[in-house]
Amino acid sequence: MKVVLATSNPGKVAEAREILHGSPLEIVTIAMWLGDVETGVTYLENARLKARSASRVTHLPVLAEDAGIEVDALHGAPGPHSARFSGPAATDTTNNAKLLRLLDGAADRGARYRAVAVLVLPSGKEFVGEGTFEGAVAERVRGSGGFGYDPLFVPNGEVRTAAELAPDEKNAISHRGLALRALVAEFADL
Amino acid sequence: MKVVLATSNPGKVAEAREILHGSPLEIVTIAMWLGDVETGVTYLENARLKARSASRVTHLPVLAEDAGIEVDALHGAPGPHSARFSGPAATDTTNNAKLLRLLDGAADRGARYRAVAVLVLPSGKEFVGEGTFEGAVAERVRGSGGFGYDPLFVPNGEVRTAAELAPDEKNAISHRGLALRALVAEFADL
Repeated sequence: MKVVLATSNPGKVAEAREILHGSPLEIVTIAMWLGDVETGVTYLENARLKARSASRVTHLPVLAEDAGIEVDALHGAPGPHSARFSGPAATDTTNNAKLLRLLDGAADRGARYRAVAVLVLPSGKEFVGEGTFEGAVAERVRGSGGFGYDPLFVPNGEVRTAAELAPDEKNAISHRGLALRALVAEFADL
Repeated sequence: MKVVLATSNPGKVAEAREILHGSPLEIVTIAMWLGDVETGVTYLENARLKARSASRVTHLPVLAEDAGIEVDALHGAPGPHSARFSGPAATDTTNNAKLLRLLDGAADRGARYRAVAVLVLPSGKEFVGEGTFEGAVAERVRGSGGFGYDPLFVPNGEVRTAAELAPDEKNAISHRGLALRALVAEFADL
């Protein structure tokens, strides 16, 4: 049975999931409870579906975000499918390995991260922010910060990967930073 | 304004909170939304309050847990106040520092962690599990695993602190592991 864990402590979530692995109780968050709602074909549709579903269940203001990496040599793939790039059981490690394999020997390694954030209020009112983060795919994974494709993503003007940047350095220029700050600006205008 | 972040990705939660720090939007989880519901005087009351409140808002099965460390030389303090031991802005670092300061020169360093987990179903049906983890308070913080007082807590029969144990080693003997497995046993009996 899926159960929502009521805590604000990420350490407790990780421990509880490990402890209950294989038991009849599966720890989920509100987003996981709502299941695979990412059935849209764009970042905006995915973020909007997540935010609306969670707001409808909880009657609370909900912020959701969808993001992906678009690789020039792959004609913009994996895009909105970035999280599941290497299959239904994909992890950051298997996704990065697949991307490296597909780009083996590729001369054009240009890529960009994109993010769309959507805030849905219980009234149904909606705020949207978008962000783009230009860069290139490195030849091997480097760094332990961030998540997703960060160990392979070298932002334009950088020699380090996004996983080698300090969190505040990454957040100042990242797709997610830009998207959330754009959303806040729209909200503050109200 | 508090907004619930709809994601199952802990990396996204951390980044979004950092990016939005100082903005009008404050990222919270369901548990944080419900606010400072830990107004009971026992672990059981605290866990039950959190689980019931979150289940009432979401109409979902909710698991909540409350835990604390009881130090013999402090007559069982901080107990259910462990998370806020060093004040309203307490962090693991300031809590551990306060505990070390209070135990400076103490001969008796015996202590135990206790946890109570409560699962509340939308029907109101409730399952409870409890766990105790006996040990002693180290002379200085050691290790980077776990959270809370783990860097100071040396389990009985161990020389390492709980923060120096591998996650599966800690979970096999910890108060949280015992409490959650006891709850699962009660649930499975149904």
